[in-house]
Amino acid sequence: MPPKKSFPQLSKIQEVELIDDLSQWALGNGLVMYPKDFKPYNAAYAPVTLFPTPFPRSQFEKGIEVAEKFGELYAKVTSNYEWLSKAIEELSQFDKGFTGKLWEVYLKAREFGIVQTKSLGLFRSDYMLDTANGEERIKQVEFNTVSISFGGLSSKVGELHSFLNSKGDYSSDKGNYYRDEDLPVSDSIKGLSEGLAQGVRYYESSESVKDTVVLFVVQHNERNVFDQRLLEYELLKSGIKSKRLTLSEVESSTAIDEATRALKLKSTGQTISVVYYRSAYAPYEFTSEKDWHARYYLEITRAVKCPSLLTQLSGAKKIQQVLTSKAVLGQFLDKESIDTLHDTFVAIHPMDDSEEGLAAQKLAFAEPERFVLKPQREGGGNNIYKQNIPEFLEGLPKSEWPGYILMELIHPPTLKNKILRDGVIIEEGILCELGIFNTVLFDESDGQILYNKAAGYLLRSKTSSSDEGGVAAGFGCVDSVYLY
Amino acid sequence: MPPKKSFPQLSKIQEVELIDDLSQWALGNGLVMYPKDFKPYNAAYAPVTLFPTPFPRSQFEKGIEVAEKFGELYAKVTSNYEWLSKAIEELSQFDKGFTGKLWEVYLKAREFGIVQTKSLGLFRSDYMLDTANGEERIKQVEFNTVSISFGGLSSKVGELHSFLNSKGDYSSDKGNYYRDEDLPVSDSIKGLSEGLAQGVRYYESSESVKDTVVLFVVQHNERNVFDQRLLEYELLKSGIKSKRLTLSEVESSTAIDEATRALKLKSTGQTISVVYYRSAYAPYEFTSEKDWHARYYLEITRAVKCPSLLTQLSGAKKIQQVLTSKAVLGQFLDKESIDTLHDTFVAIHPMDDSEEGLAAQKLAFAEPERFVLKPQREGGGNNIYKQNIPEFLEGLPKSEWPGYILMELIHPPTLKNKILRDGVIIEEGILCELGIFNTVLFDESDGQILYNKAAGYLLRSKTSSSDEGGVAAGFGCVDSVYLY
Repeated sequence: MPPKKSFPQLSKIQEVELIDDLSQWALGNGLVMYPKDFKPYNAAYAPVTLFPTPFPRSQFEKGIEVAEKFGELYAKVTSNYEWLSKAIEELSQFDKGFTGKLWEVYLKAREFGIVQTKSLGLFRSDYMLDTANGEERIKQVEFNTVSISFGGLSSKVGELHSFLNSKGDYSSDKGNYYRDEDLPVSDSIKGLSEGLAQGVRYYESSESVKDTVVLFVVQHNERNVFDQRLLEYELLKSGIKSKRLTLSEVESSTAIDEATRALKLKSTGQTISVVYYRSAYAPYEFTSEKDWHARYYLEITRAVKCPSLLTQLSGAKKIQQVLTSKAVLGQFLDKESIDTLHDTFVAIHPMDDSEEGLAAQKLAFAEPERFVLKPQREGGGNNIYKQNIPEFLEGLPKSEWPGYILMELIHPPTLKNKILRDGVIIEEGILCELGIFNTVLFDESDGQILYNKAAGYLLRSKTSSSDEGGVAAGFGCVDSVYLY
Repeated sequence: MPPKKSFPQLSKIQEVELIDDLSQWALGNGLVMYPKDFKPYNAAYAPVTLFPTPFPRSQFEKGIEVAEKFGELYAKVTSNYEWLSKAIEELSQFDKGFTGKLWEVYLKAREFGIVQTKSLGLFRSDYMLDTANGEERIKQVEFNTVSISFGGLSSKVGELHSFLNSKGDYSSDKGNYYRDEDLPVSDSIKGLSEGLAQGVRYYESSESVKDTVVLFVVQHNERNVFDQRLLEYELLKSGIKSKRLTLSEVESSTAIDEATRALKLKSTGQTISVVYYRSAYAPYEFTSEKDWHARYYLEITRAVKCPSLLTQLSGAKKIQQVLTSKAVLGQFLDKESIDTLHDTFVAIHPMDDSEEGLAAQKLAFAEPERFVLKPQREGGGNNIYKQNIPEFLEGLPKSEWPGYILMELIHPPTLKNKILRDGVIIEEGILCELGIFNTVLFDESDGQILYNKAAGYLLRSKTSSSDEGGVAAGFGCVDSVYLY
């Protein structure tokens, strides 16, 4: 048995063999992406850690335990139109280009009439392990309600690390370094596919149709397509077919039945029961009004959207901030759930002129090293850290401060894992983010939950020197947990 | 139901979608090779047909039916030292560089003492469909006894074609074009792995050891490594570990126990129970005397060789030629088996000064269009076809003619399948070669057979304009059968 938090100690020769086994397993088992010099006939292995990363079992289990509670929370938030619309309208002022635009599209769809009140959520709640008080506790970084990725590759990287362990590559005597039961393989391929299948089955049974398909709305030249395909393959095992279209192809390739608003593929007449977005989560993806119109067009169909516009909007950082208040949580959940969820939050403050906001403004100048300042604007990459906060705020008109939230920093441990990317080993120490997947099918008109289930995990690691960590963007990598 | 021998008729749009689905399935499911511009972190999909190729069910089943008989035949040929040594010695004169050298190594090992009489064969008998007499009958092209490949990728391409069929990509209405039962997926991954496992289990039980490993003797920078890895992964599922070494690494990485001749890995002390060659089948692979010595070194160990030198030598074209005589077959098989096997042969004549040889020499000039002239020399790529034969023979000293065999041409149908390679579709019509795998564990000292089992199939297709068809070499591709 390895001591807690340890990594295998390998000789240079053993590491070379490990990398050979790892690379070929990854390339031969679909742990792949399109390479940067995109060619449709080549794949590259995804950036990946050499070893599974130690993670405290109790905190891993806590993440899974709260997954369905978060599913319930966001279903209820989304279904409380009065509450949500107020929050989103406020937020829209500070993010006109995206949140505002999504909201506008939603209002237009609402005015036309939304015929499908069921909404499907494939969610991922992301945590870091906070070591601030000498303890190790998961703290929520963000809650994602649209186009969550890496559920496919996460199962694969778990299988990879288990393979290397079984082969004896982590041990100098070719025995197993880890016990199998300490290396859980994420069941996210099955879990997320089952979520989509729930949407299909609901639609087919309520509309009395058969052989419907799932529409994957995807990006053009997506590098992470294999992650998505894994869900498609799993769905097909249950006889559920899929179709992939980009947002700009949607309207020319489909038609809406006038009477029922059923969405159909023009080429074959197949009915689309579920619209599954693996795109449309960031402003840069909408390149024209045509793309925005496609988002509207899909919203007014009878297909179950994964997610609906309201569900997507519930994932705004502003909502995350507001939900850190126990009083607000109390509007949606029972007492026990409030405490359990709240325990995973760090403080997030508004920067507006409310009492809490004014206090936060002071804090941002007095103790900036404790915080990260995040724009409410969606799209990522614009966070301001620690000592940079005061100067940044000074350069910003005070009227724009409410466009930000002030979030307490989480202090994850730096671990001595190694990252392999394009044949190069990176040994800077890593930081990890644990994502727990959840799927929920619910009714936005009354909050009724038809299906709600945790759906595996993702461990994403990045070098400790980088503050943001997108895997596809070229820094950070997929990882799996070794539970201690 | 499609009519016999038909291929799906797709619109351009449907074909684009098919290629997208095909490419990504292949890249995401291990139907891959290293690309020509070898990078250890990139894979390319293997050249592959868009559709399964029609093949008559009766002839497919015949190939499987005779597989174990061929296993028995070659086990018996290999075990008849007197007979085989005579044939190989003769042959060695005409192929000093390879057959002669292998034989020399064998004799040296025999003199030193061969302690392991059990031999493991992973064989592949290759056929083409002969349409010469208005019938369709499989006729043997060659019988391979060493380093047979594509057992891994063959299972994958069957899965691919089944996936595309299930997804509806072969049909304009997205229904199934083929019935599932007409698209058999080759079980060669399981079958060949089970053959290797039989060798391991025999060794472990007879030597009373546990946790032995299979040594894959491989080429440096092998592009077709994923095909091999699939067997490794399947073996590991049964708890059997593998180690990969090139011929030139063998002696520095292993040691032979003096008392027992057990072969062990120096690094870990693990015993190697089976030496599985995925190399050493062609002269160009032996780059130095060191490589030849490694072949000797392995032969004198207690490990079960797959194949032993004698088993490898039994696959010579000369042996294939001699075995086309019913009288010769009668030395090894019962009457019924003789007829069944002989039915799969075309005429193959010696070019020596025997009565048959002299007749063949005349035939080669009188009716060259009926034949292909093949050198007994191993290594491939030097066949002389039809009208080119007379001129070739005229340019050759008559003393060298016995270094060739004259083989009746097989006339396979040209079929309208399409090949996809590196993103390019090739539509020249294809010719197919059906390989049937077989595994046999036997004793070379007495011909006793411990295990003998058919192990799936390979359909390899090539453009009709190319006469030779290696997949890794860049022409030809992997395919699967649609049985009619």
